Amino acid sequence: MTDEPSSAAGGTPTDRTVLIVSAHAADFVWRAGGAAALYAKHGNAVHVRCLSFGERGESQGLWKQPGMDVATVKKARRDESSRAAAALGASIGFYDAGDYPLAFTEGLQDRLVEDMRALQPDIILTHAARDPYNLDHQGTHEFVLRCRMIAQAAGHPSEHPPIGAPQVLLFEPHQPEQCGFVPQLLLDISPVADVKLDAMRIMGAQSHLVDYYTDLARRRGVQYVRNGGDRSAVHAEAYQRVFPVTGGALI
Amino acid sequence: MTDEPSSAAGGTPTDRTVLIVSAHAADFVWRAGGAAALYAKHGNAVHVRCLSFGERGESQGLWKQPGMDVATVKKARRDESSRAAAALGASIGFYDAGDYPLAFTEGLQDRLVEDMRALQPDIILTHAARDPYNLDHQGTHEFVLRCRMIAQAAGHPSEHPPIGAPQVLLFEPHQPEQCGFVPQLLLDISPVADVKLDAMRIMGAQSHLVDYYTDLARRRGVQYVRNGGDRSAVHAEAYQRVFPVTGGALI
Amino acid sequence: MTDEPSSAAGGTPTDRTVLIVSAHAADFVWRAGGAAALYAKHGNAVHVRCLSFGERGESQGLWKQPGMDVATVKKARRDESSRAAAALGASIGFYDAGDYPLAFTEGLQDRLVEDMRALQPDIILTHAARDPYNLDHQGTHEFVLRCRMIAQAAGHPSEHPPIGAPQVLLFEPHQPEQCGFVPQLLLDISPVADVKLDAMRIMGAQSHLVDYYTDLARRRGVQYVRNGGDRSAVHAEAYQRVFPVTGGALI
Amino acid sequence: MTDEPSSAAGGTPTDRTVLIVSAHAADFVWRAGGAAALYAKHGNAVHVRCLSFGERGESQGLWKQPGMDVATVKKARRDESSRAAAALGASIGFYDAGDYPLAFTEGLQDRLVEDMRALQPDIILTHAARDPYNLDHQGTHEFVLRCRMIAQAAGHPSEHPPIGAPQVLLFEPHQPEQCGFVPQLLLDISPVADVKLDAMRIMGAQSHLVDYYTDLARRRGVQYVRNGGDRSAVHAEAYQRVFPVTGGALI
Amino acid sequence: MTDEPSSAAGGTPTDRTVLIVSAHAADFVWRAGGAAALYAKHGNAVHVRCLSFGERGESQGLWKQPGMDVATVKKARRDESSRAAAALGASIGFYDAGDYPLAFTEGLQDRLVEDMRALQPDIILTHAARDPYNLDHQGTHEFVLRCRMIAQAAGHPSEHPPIGAPQVLLFEPHQPEQCGFVPQLLLDISPVADVKLDAMRIMGAQSHLVDYYTDLARRRGVQYVRNGGDRSAVHAEAYQRVFPVTGGALI
Amino acid sequence: MTDEPSSAAGGTPTDRTVLIVSAHAADFVWRAGGAAALYAKHGNAVHVRCLSFGERGESQGLWKQPGMDVATVKKARRDESSRAAAALGASIGFYDAGDYPLAFTEGLQDRLVEDMRALQPDIILTHAARDPYNLDHQGTHEFVLRCRMIAQAAGHPSEHPPIGAPQVLLFEPHQPEQCGFVPQLLLDISPVADVKLDAMRIMGAQSHLVDYYTDLARRRGVQYVRNGGDRSAVHAEAYQRVFPVTGGALI
Repeated sequence: MTDEPSSAAGGTPTDRTVLIVSAHAADFVWRAGGAAALYAKHGNAVHVRCLSFGERGESQGLWKQPGMDVATVKKARRDESSRAAAALGASIGFYDAGDYPLAFTEGLQDRLVEDMRALQPDIILTHAARDPYNLDHQGTHEFVLRCRMIAQAAGHPSEHPPIGAPQVLLFEPHQPEQCGFVPQLLLDISPVADVKLDAMRIMGAQSHLVDYYTDLARRRGVQYVRNGGDRSAVHAEAYQRVFPVTGGALI
Repeated sequence: MTDEPSSAAGGTPTDRTVLIVSAHAADFVWRAGGAAALYAKHGNAVHVRCLSFGERGESQGLWKQPGMDVATVKKARRDESSRAAAALGASIGFYDAGDYPLAFTEGLQDRLVEDMRALQPDIILTHAARDPYNLDHQGTHEFVLRCRMIAQAAGHPSEHPPIGAPQVLLFEPHQPEQCGFVPQLLLDISPVADVKLDAMRIMGAQSHLVDYYTDLARRRGVQYVRNGGDRSAVHAEAYQRVFPVTGGALI
Repeated sequence: MTDEPSSAAGGTPTDRTVLIVSAHAADFVWRAGGAAALYAKHGNAVHVRCLSFGERGESQGLWKQPGMDVATVKKARRDESSRAAAALGASIGFYDAGDYPLAFTEGLQDRLVEDMRALQPDIILTHAARDPYNLDHQGTHEFVLRCRMIAQAAGHPSEHPPIGAPQVLLFEPHQPEQCGFVPQLLLDISPVADVKLDAMRIMGAQSHLVDYYTDLARRRGVQYVRNGGDRSAVHAEAYQRVFPVTGGALI
Repeated sequence: MTDEPSSAAGGTPTDRTVLIVSAHAADFVWRAGGAAALYAKHGNAVHVRCLSFGERGESQGLWKQPGMDVATVKKARRDESSRAAAALGASIGFYDAGDYPLAFTEGLQDRLVEDMRALQPDIILTHAARDPYNLDHQGTHEFVLRCRMIAQAAGHPSEHPPIGAPQVLLFEPHQPEQCGFVPQLLLDISPVADVKLDAMRIMGAQSHLVDYYTDLARRRGVQYVRNGGDRSAVHAEAYQRVFPVTGGALI
Repeated sequence: MTDEPSSAAGGTPTDRTVLIVSAHAADFVWRAGGAAALYAKHGNAVHVRCLSFGERGESQGLWKQPGMDVATVKKARRDESSRAAAALGASIGFYDAGDYPLAFTEGLQDRLVEDMRALQPDIILTHAARDPYNLDHQGTHEFVLRCRMIAQAAGHPSEHPPIGAPQVLLFEPHQPEQCGFVPQLLLDISPVADVKLDAMRIMGAQSHLVDYYTDLARRRGVQYVRNGGDRSAVHAEAYQRVFPVTGGALI
Repeated sequence: MTDEPSSAAGGTPTDRTVLIVSAHAADFVWRAGGAAALYAKHGNAVHVRCLSFGERGESQGLWKQPGMDVATVKKARRDESSRAAAALGASIGFYDAGDYPLAFTEGLQDRLVEDMRALQPDIILTHAARDPYNLDHQGTHEFVLRCRMIAQAAGHPSEHPPIGAPQVLLFEPHQPEQCGFVPQLLLDISPVADVKLDAMRIMGAQSHLVDYYTDLARRRGVQYVRNGGDRSAVHAEAYQRVFPVTGGALI
């Protein structure tokens, strides 16, 4: 198959606000680190909110160390994720809601709704709707849609005004086919591939994933070109949408 | 729900080539007339190819006239569709392959492949993958994908070079839910709504559809705003994609 | 396509009990107002239960008025919905469980289960299984199925006997394709179209929806005839089922 | 779960025309024999059309006999199926189009279209859309939809007028879950269970299926009551629909 | 179709630990009794955990007796299920979490997670992901996946080590097509069919199900042979998987 | 997540006959080369049948050479594929049916049916059911199922006896999510990874795919361990099934 760069969509905008809601402290790095870096590089505001530190279920590297305890794991995760976010050019906040399982309490809901109201995101990135391996992830998906709905409500009490109808994009789960994930957008992250790599390398607790997600970005990069993207692209991230896009262009 | 214009994608491009493959001579008017007019208005090249005239199955208005015959129906349909295409700003070609059922012969395939090679479209618009009411429509879907594949083949003999990987967008079937159609793009056709209306009114053989598709465009227009599009939009057309889009923007 | 009235199912029965469970105080008007009016007109008992008033998320018209507060919104919604139900010929009850988000508490469950036991409905109408725009709606779907199950339990303590196996029909969400909604029944509401219109006009807080749902009823009416229904039909409502129907007739 | 007979749909009509399109000469007996007998018993016209005799792929009992040849198998199958149809109260016709694979030629299409035009069926029963075990079955599904579309075309030349929009119901494949078959209608065939049993017993070439389909009818009968049907029902057949039903009743 | 025993997978292993999580006290008997007996017979450890007794919703036989109360129903259910488990060769435990609805509390979660940690199962059997008739069943599905995830977490506090990645198999719901259940494994339970029958007969509260599930096992047995299994098989149980299997064999 | 090797299925068998049906001459190398090498290494018979050489659509490397013609491309492809099959330990046959599009003629059908009859495969490997990028691939899927059905027919004339019910496994398409491909089996090909690499390197016309499929095997290898497979596995291939497996083991 030949693959002329006939259908590349427009370039990265420069005035958007992006909110990434990450179930655990590291998910945003592996799965949306490229989008975060790309948008930050172009001057957009990128905010990460981590519902939990992933202290129990996604820190096996730390738990292998003798004498480890939860407080130490949380601190390490917070440090790593903060440095990774900084490397990507994103602000970060932690809700510390616990993991395995994540407790989607009313209090957690209030916090995310209020952040949505305050930030007024144009775009929200989060987990896919289904993940039989990780109920925290699929719970986060539904939780984000619920908070988006509340933040839209005219009668919800808040000092900030209601949000509009931000697009919701789902980043790629670890085993996409088992999660019903179908890419609808391949995002060219080649210009920031090195930035994402730096951020991933910061995540010491899950260092075995650096190669996995680097390979994945190359794989999505090959598909990027196959689907008509510019041949210069090498690394890409895949996203699925929840809602239809609007506008005046067919691609 | 509030609906701020927070997520509108970019404006209409100006240098694309669009190919619309219509099973019958009028399908493109009802279902993609807005896209055709919008792209033509912005200087893009828009080409329509009708596989058949829809002379048997989609011309009941004509067949109600006494003494009607196939040649007369075809001529009337050709005239109507040609005028509608002109009104939209599109070129048009007819393959006259018969309808109810459409015969997807090797000869028909050669013609469409050669046209794809000659036109080098960036975007192809055609029917949805499934339509239990109209097998000609779902047959056209598969046929277009097959011809696209052939036109991409390096070893396919032709005086024209292989095509790249044009995006394929599916326009809305008459009863979308029964066809598994899910809108992924709502296209703002408000600036050309009057042009589409003029084109639809030309289609005398199916005049009962003018109101139906005008209502539909308003319905999709309301949804356009609900999904974050600019509040000035009134009329829209819905499209589903076959392949992921590529680019540097999340929306 | 010709469209002879060859497959119309039987007429409206006269001795059924219909229960409509509406997430917010107005949903039943837009989406099932025709069914309610039609069944009431034929002497069936029609009962509406609104889980919340939709005071926060579905009353933007009211919130635009200066000095508005929740109590006033609730009262206005109660008044509107009560008058609309009366116009349709249905009884109505309000559970006032809050909205955006609706809290599906044990207490709410007890109330609906007890009402199901007391009313012994033959038919239950409620929301679709999935609605990414409105988690209250999809929550209501699951909640209704859960309450139906409890109300069937021989060992559930109540002064009323267990219910049988009432059919559950889902009315049409605002953006059906995004919700996986597929019409399995098109209900001819032409004889009560004016009644539904009157009821819709009562809903002052969401008056922009009157045209939207009037257009929708005409659209479904056209499809009604296309699917073999009597040509006299002009307005219809679409429903999806959860369980198979039983009986001695193929249509 | 209790199971009160709360939702039984109306009784069997008396003035319909039913057309059953069977890929092989025996399929209609196992899968729609109850519907055929029930409708015939109530005075409806029931017509069976067998596209092939199933002489190669569905007559293993006959092929085990020494010296068997195709002509003899066809004759035996024709005799059996004719007697079974007579037992059910249905007329029958054979197109002898060959099996394994069935050849869906233009000639075959002309015959079925013309029969549809001549019979003007209100209801068509045929195979499910997918069957990875039996491509003849899934081919027949698509073929029937295509012929229905052609028979509807105003411009299709025929001495008979176009058909309307007959409902299409799919009878149950041998392994329903593998075929994506979901029952939407459970038809009470208890009043004709003995008639169907007699018809099944006539099918000597596949006698091992008599028990299998008798058990299945009982299984569907239990589900019939579970889904709210009258408790007197013992045997049922399951059907899936292609198009929405129309009418004035919710069940 | 001929059906040579060409594709039978290997024999029953002898050193596995199987955990069956049953929403109500009897579900495991009807739906996984064959697997339990087969694995127990071969020396594997088989453990059943019943989240509730099904005292309200699945004991209608008992509730028909005058003067019945919940404590008596629970005791009867415990006795029956314990004897059935013993007949099958399985250990059993009861969590008594209530039914219709089952309350998936944190306490219940702690118990199942701790049991998973203690038992270290290789295989988990439980309910399907969706069951519109029985929300307790679909709730159990999600609950089991959640507990599995927690039991895998390195940082979850417990005296037992984390579990690995046990396979999860879903047993067959009462009306499989309505639950999206698709068999991926047909398990030959012929060698223990009499054991399962004995166990089913112990379940006095739901005796009407003995025939239903005996018929079902024969039906799955016929399909077993049709799908290439050994012709000696007569009874089978169907299972669907959640995760891909791993190994060095294609079947 | 920890990932103990708790659920590995049994080892590779030694007496099976495997038939791989490849649309184009190289597909089997990229997608099933590991399975072929693994089964061959264990003494099983592995046969490849290539429906076409992929001379037009999958030989762009060759067509870039000046003065290339179809006969030369075919010869090169035949040579490469023959050497690759030999490297894998498989026999190979070419049907030369043309590509882009592949013509699924009656003659082609006769050849594959006869080969199925002669080879009596226990296992068939072929393409997935859907591939919008490559209609030849999805056509091959349906064609293989059709030929399998014909080869099973007792009355199909042949000197070889009917086949049984061989399992059909689908190998991974190039962009699996777009093709509805869901892995149900991860096959450990680590012991033959070097053999597959050698075979891939022989395919000079598509050398850019060697890295892509090597990366993919590592990715599937990581998932292999994640899904409970032995930690020693490094490379894996993914397969989806068409039919349920049968046997006496749950995994």
